[in-house]
Amino acid sequence: MSGAGLRAVPVGEVAIGEGFWAERQRVHRDVMLPHCLDKLEATGRLANFRRAAGREPGGFQGHYGFDDSDVYKVLEGIAYVLMTTPSPALAERADEMFRLIAEAQEPDGYLFTRNTLSSEGSERARWSDMNSHEMYTGGHFIEAAVAYHQATGSTVGLETARRLADHYRSEFGPGRRHWVDGHEEVGLALMRLADETGDAGYAEFALWHLEERGRGHGQGAVWDDPAFGAAYSQDRIPVADLTAAEGHAVRAMYLLSAMTDAAARGHDAYGPALRAVWDNVVQHHLYVTGGIGAAGGIEGFGADDVLPNREAYCETCAAIALVYWADRMNRWTGGAAAADVVEQVLYNGLLAGWSVSGDRFFYDNPLESDGTHRRQPWFGCACCPSNLARFIPSVGRYVYATGPDTLYVNQFITSVARVTVGDQTVHVAQRTGFPWEGRVTLQLTGEDLSHVRVAIRQPAWAGSATVTVNGAPGPIRWERGYLVCQRAWQAGDVVAVEFPLPVRRVHQAPAVLDTRGRVALARGPLVYAVEAADHPDAVDDATAPPDALLLADPLAEVPGVGSAVRIRAVRPDSDGALTAVPYFLWANREPGPMRVWLREV
Amino acid sequence: MSGAGLRAVPVGEVAIGEGFWAERQRVHRDVMLPHCLDKLEATGRLANFRRAAGREPGGFQGHYGFDDSDVYKVLEGIAYVLMTTPSPALAERADEMFRLIAEAQEPDGYLFTRNTLSSEGSERARWSDMNSHEMYTGGHFIEAAVAYHQATGSTVGLETARRLADHYRSEFGPGRRHWVDGHEEVGLALMRLADETGDAGYAEFALWHLEERGRGHGQGAVWDDPAFGAAYSQDRIPVADLTAAEGHAVRAMYLLSAMTDAAARGHDAYGPALRAVWDNVVQHHLYVTGGIGAAGGIEGFGADDVLPNREAYCETCAAIALVYWADRMNRWTGGAAAADVVEQVLYNGLLAGWSVSGDRFFYDNPLESDGTHRRQPWFGCACCPSNLARFIPSVGRYVYATGPDTLYVNQFITSVARVTVGDQTVHVAQRTGFPWEGRVTLQLTGEDLSHVRVAIRQPAWAGSATVTVNGAPGPIRWERGYLVCQRAWQAGDVVAVEFPLPVRRVHQAPAVLDTRGRVALARGPLVYAVEAADHPDAVDDATAPPDALLLADPLAEVPGVGSAVRIRAVRPDSDGALTAVPYFLWANREPGPMRVWLREV
Repeated sequence: MSGAGLRAVPVGEVAIGEGFWAERQRVHRDVMLPHCLDKLEATGRLANFRRAAGREPGGFQGHYGFDDSDVYKVLEGIAYVLMTTPSPALAERADEMFRLIAEAQEPDGYLFTRNTLSSEGSERARWSDMNSHEMYTGGHFIEAAVAYHQATGSTVGLETARRLADHYRSEFGPGRRHWVDGHEEVGLALMRLADETGDAGYAEFALWHLEERGRGHGQGAVWDDPAFGAAYSQDRIPVADLTAAEGHAVRAMYLLSAMTDAAARGHDAYGPALRAVWDNVVQHHLYVTGGIGAAGGIEGFGADDVLPNREAYCETCAAIALVYWADRMNRWTGGAAAADVVEQVLYNGLLAGWSVSGDRFFYDNPLESDGTHRRQPWFGCACCPSNLARFIPSVGRYVYATGPDTLYVNQFITSVARVTVGDQTVHVAQRTGFPWEGRVTLQLTGEDLSHVRVAIRQPAWAGSATVTVNGAPGPIRWERGYLVCQRAWQAGDVVAVEFPLPVRRVHQAPAVLDTRGRVALARGPLVYAVEAADHPDAVDDATAPPDALLLADPLAEVPGVGSAVRIRAVRPDSDGALTAVPYFLWANREPGPMRVWLREV
Repeated sequence: MSGAGLRAVPVGEVAIGEGFWAERQRVHRDVMLPHCLDKLEATGRLANFRRAAGREPGGFQGHYGFDDSDVYKVLEGIAYVLMTTPSPALAERADEMFRLIAEAQEPDGYLFTRNTLSSEGSERARWSDMNSHEMYTGGHFIEAAVAYHQATGSTVGLETARRLADHYRSEFGPGRRHWVDGHEEVGLALMRLADETGDAGYAEFALWHLEERGRGHGQGAVWDDPAFGAAYSQDRIPVADLTAAEGHAVRAMYLLSAMTDAAARGHDAYGPALRAVWDNVVQHHLYVTGGIGAAGGIEGFGADDVLPNREAYCETCAAIALVYWADRMNRWTGGAAAADVVEQVLYNGLLAGWSVSGDRFFYDNPLESDGTHRRQPWFGCACCPSNLARFIPSVGRYVYATGPDTLYVNQFITSVARVTVGDQTVHVAQRTGFPWEGRVTLQLTGEDLSHVRVAIRQPAWAGSATVTVNGAPGPIRWERGYLVCQRAWQAGDVVAVEFPLPVRRVHQAPAVLDTRGRVALARGPLVYAVEAADHPDAVDDATAPPDALLLADPLAEVPGVGSAVRIRAVRPDSDGALTAVPYFLWANREPGPMRVWLREV
């Protein structure tokens, strides 16, 4: 371990039984997952596997070779569901899908149905284009297989995954071919495979992939296209030399996630790059919604501080990928600031990509719309729905992290968890009305809690807090953004923290020209938006002058939107008020314009 | 009526039965009032009246002619107590005091025991020095008599007051002698007498007093002393020409109170001066504690933005007098900002002048102490204890104001009130844990409430609020700092408002050199202080760096201080925390240094 050495808590150890996220996870199980499984079938994605397995005749159906990855991501989502919500029927379906995939795998371990089904033959088709997404797709399979093994103990996927990874190692690596995979998913997948199998060779191989970049080995049409080039795939310079975000946002985040994994394993050479790129992303590329990747043309990073709102790309996958990186940065740095970013993305740009109904999705998440931007049931490139399908049931992963003597409370989510701190097993029952209310209680149970420190993230948006242990003010240390309580805990002790939740006026740095003179409204972790459903004719002129009265209405049902705390900005001496809803809930009612950044005059 | 035309609600119509202020009023009745009555006797103040009445032999006992005023202010306090807390014994004692005072009044109406008891004879002693405080003292008698008449219906004091005021009119006024009374109490007293008797002549006479100033009529030793001069008594220029605060703070506030009364009666010529001086006081002379009058030498205003902390004079009487003026400015302007100042003074600089025990007082209220500043049981010049004795039981006056169709909720104090809005009698039950908690509920009852608007002050320190009517968000207008709810009220409707109470870091304008680089901690209306009882050796170095964690501990008993929400500022990676208590509660424990403004580095 290197860096701060915090450890993740497995998804299966955190049960989310009620509250805000439990409801989202219920909709995931009841609506999103069946919907995605239907789409995998309806779009031919599963047929491609049956054909590659020889179960049915026919060629590759679809536009993109990486369509396979949607199957894998849905499988990964099923694995997370099974970790906390047993379902023999779902497990049986997943088992069958893993068996089908194993059948579709070629004898040498190669797995990519488009090339297996290629008319020119797999041997000729494979590894001919570094932007083919063969390893991207394979990385997603490895992640699904690892998750399924964790969920069920079944090796049905893991064996396929090892054969696949070993195939990669037989083709590429030191002394073999160079390869700069265009979309860096495989790196973090190999790290997970190393952890799950105990075979450190996979982590070394991941590091080799990282080190291939920026050394002139990349080639292909994307590299030759001046609109993309090497930077699009983070292949411009060696990754240890990166100082700023560049290229495709999701690719960059997956790369940085793998680099952070490497740093956590002791590869200290990545430390300066990680810190520099983190600062650059947070200071110059992060929308108030937690969105990243402003530039639609490359689905990625534009120039520093160029953050247009209507044209903001902010891919849903990039939000998810930023959570992956920020979570790793939290564990590597030990600082709460990275977990703040996880929260910012979770409750805004990430959830916005998914409808309340559960079966509609945004690919891109602008902060302003003329009313034509609507969620869709699926996309030709369906990475976002399938990424949400795996992400939503995994959210328990972000609640806690652990150090040798410390339980880090990173997210405020009603749940029951079993975590390991040092040599102690600690049961933690967390209850909260977050994000609508600011009170959180934690009840600890365990055999010997005398040496356990409880570190509660103090969100940067919270100016202060009230913290008690069993109702009395507790001794607090303040470390790297965490409220740390240390005492000789008794089983059943209750730590309560309350963050006041005033409505806040948020301004962006003046270097961002698009938001000069504009204000966003926020409350707790939530950024708010004004949309046409509340203001049929006035969204473009929506104004929250500095002397407006800001009201937070109590949590109530908003038809079509679900329960929400609405914000009202009331102008002096004016009838009517500007009503805002949480950004993540926009576009769940009748179509129309929307704005996050409001006029101030 | 001129200006906004808001009306005060009589003290007797607002019953404070429980909560923060009820407890302070209980201590006033049980401790402060008996203590003050004892002191009036022990110091000879009552003996002077017996001697002037011929009931016992002897000359004037004491240092100051205005000692009589302490008797009157205690009587005024008794009147307010009797308005809401019947006590036949207390009423009988007050009756007897008023009868004694009537006996001490000279046949021509003159009343001032020092001169009545003068060896040279009253006729020679009286009206020889404009700074004698004869009319200051008389004004306090008039206020006491008016309050007692309101409380009991008894004319025992009011008749004496009218004879006194008529005596003044026989000596001074148009066509008679000029007179610039050094301490302007008589002006506002005559306004009250006019209201109570219906004799508008008293108000005209008050206006004559105001207009005497700044026209070269003032004379006496104070005028001739270059350290004081005409400005000390606001006699430098005509009062309508004032643009800034000057001179003795209490005198200035009483003058401005009377001017505001005149403006409210239609004397529009004072409008520009009132607005200009108000802005000057609030922007350049107001301590964060609501204290005014920085300069001890003149008990008054220094240069703009010169606000030293250790040397801050901030007389308790000046705090009370600022409440008088700010309350009138609220009713004249109709703006909540002036009621914000009432609150700021009430919960900080005013209450700080009074010990939790009830029998100790500060004359001056610095924002920093080396530990030698301790409350005293009494003073040679006892204006502050007697002013608190009349103020504390009158606090119900500041809860509400009314307009023709609007109930203004100015202060958040648990109480039951009967107010008149237009032609409707409205019963208002207010409940709140203020200033510790931010939730306030108001229940309205009345015959026809359909046209009543409820205007709730939104404190400037509250960034936002949650407002409901019967649990649902109510339609709100936002007028001059008030949340205005208008609807067809049903009897029993409950309006609830909740203000989030984060701990705030407060900075003063950089023009104030003494607080550059320093921060004060505040929560809701309360400013906090660090004192030696919590930090025996470290108050001078008390530091709240910008990255400190701010905690508000739950309301709890602090030995010697009573119930309080304490603030902790926890430095990163440091053991121990800076503990702060509400400024108004400082110096109730063992003596030691104190600071409001803390270092930031």
